[in-house]
Amino acid sequence: MNNVKIVKVGGGVVEDKDTLNTLLDDFASIAGNKILVHGGGRAADKMLNRLGVEIKKVDGRRITDEATIEVVTMVYAGLVNKNIVAQLQKRSVNALGFTGADLNIIRSVKRPVKDIDYGFVGDVASVQTDVLYSLIEQGAVPVVSPITHDGNGLLLNTNADTIASELARALVHDCNVTLIYCFEKPGVMLNPNDESTVIPTLTYDEFKEYQESGVINEGMIPKLDNGFDALRLGVASVFITNTAGLKKGGGTRLILK
Amino acid sequence: MNNVKIVKVGGGVVEDKDTLNTLLDDFASIAGNKILVHGGGRAADKMLNRLGVEIKKVDGRRITDEATIEVVTMVYAGLVNKNIVAQLQKRSVNALGFTGADLNIIRSVKRPVKDIDYGFVGDVASVQTDVLYSLIEQGAVPVVSPITHDGNGLLLNTNADTIASELARALVHDCNVTLIYCFEKPGVMLNPNDESTVIPTLTYDEFKEYQESGVINEGMIPKLDNGFDALRLGVASVFITNTAGLKKGGGTRLILK
Repeated sequence: MNNVKIVKVGGGVVEDKDTLNTLLDDFASIAGNKILVHGGGRAADKMLNRLGVEIKKVDGRRITDEATIEVVTMVYAGLVNKNIVAQLQKRSVNALGFTGADLNIIRSVKRPVKDIDYGFVGDVASVQTDVLYSLIEQGAVPVVSPITHDGNGLLLNTNADTIASELARALVHDCNVTLIYCFEKPGVMLNPNDESTVIPTLTYDEFKEYQESGVINEGMIPKLDNGFDALRLGVASVFITNTAGLKKGGGTRLILK
Repeated sequence: MNNVKIVKVGGGVVEDKDTLNTLLDDFASIAGNKILVHGGGRAADKMLNRLGVEIKKVDGRRITDEATIEVVTMVYAGLVNKNIVAQLQKRSVNALGFTGADLNIIRSVKRPVKDIDYGFVGDVASVQTDVLYSLIEQGAVPVVSPITHDGNGLLLNTNADTIASELARALVHDCNVTLIYCFEKPGVMLNPNDESTVIPTLTYDEFKEYQESGVINEGMIPKLDNGFDALRLGVASVFITNTAGLKKGGGTRLILK
């Protein structure tokens, strides 16, 4: 069975030119099959501000109205994605940009309105990786932006962490999958201000204890829930790390028990 | 040898919602292998205006400074391309968006500065269609936006008519290629105000006569030059038509003699 590494990079990594260059150097040096999934929230906020479109968020989650889905489509699938593709091509990585609409790889449903109307936000409904996998086997490197579609012509905004874990789960049928969440910090830390306190391996029970005692904070919780879900569904290994860890193999490894 | 149809649609077709829907219905109904190449100049102009970026053109050609390449990348490769991809997926066409940077299909060189500095504009240097062709054979339908790259990380703005004819020329090694320029008018017309004067077939000599006598005007000349070049380099047939002609097969057919 072939190996494939899926690297999710957060907005903070993608939007600083120097950090992005380091990330892309390190990503390019990964041997074998690989996929890059990127965010771009901060670049989207900048563009929304320039266009005078109001930024609306509830508990850190974006409310994506009609003007906003237009802007995030431009920024994620156009500006951020194509710059990454061109920068990877420069590094001899045969990158190919994707949204979920391209080759219908990720279909979603517009989130139903309950207490909050999130607008044009898509919850993943199905993932189809047959042609994607055949491309990877031919040496192509998918670069995936966090836009999906509903199959009825609508583009929808979908969380990039979720896209990475959904792709990982779908690919377990064909490959031995490693999922790496790459963000600003070197891993899950006992003390957020002390990089020497990175936890090398984290079990699900430990995660839940740390969550209860408040050691692991809000932003990290959905990432870890996503990661443990992926492990349960057959993803071989899940890491949380930064660009340095991507290269040297450090960070926090999630294990079920 | 397989057939492939390459349809180039102009800005006027892409940017009106109803015309675009008609075009996509007609494009979806084309049997067999196909590629869509789109422009988006008017949508780019709108976004440049909203962002307060000055629109600079010389003889109708865009001067693409740093702020402009950012906007056209967003608009062509993000907004226009992904909306077309999602609308084609709705029509059960397995669309996959491209720029020239994706899979390194079109590499260009930044136009050298002579009398005019066109800025971030790319003249096509090489076209590589091996993985693209293998995708087409698997049923994928490439949707190509007019952005290329220089292989050194730079994204460049490239004329969409040229992209269509360059792709057509490169694919003649693998396929029997038909190239269709689809714009607002039903074909090359003797009288631009009378649709009954569409020329059904046009030879190169006739084109040059009409050009000399002023019957064929400026906007059409590069399109026709591109089209005849494509014929000379092995493209099986070249048509100039509108969305109605795309479906029914009307318009002007170019022939060498």
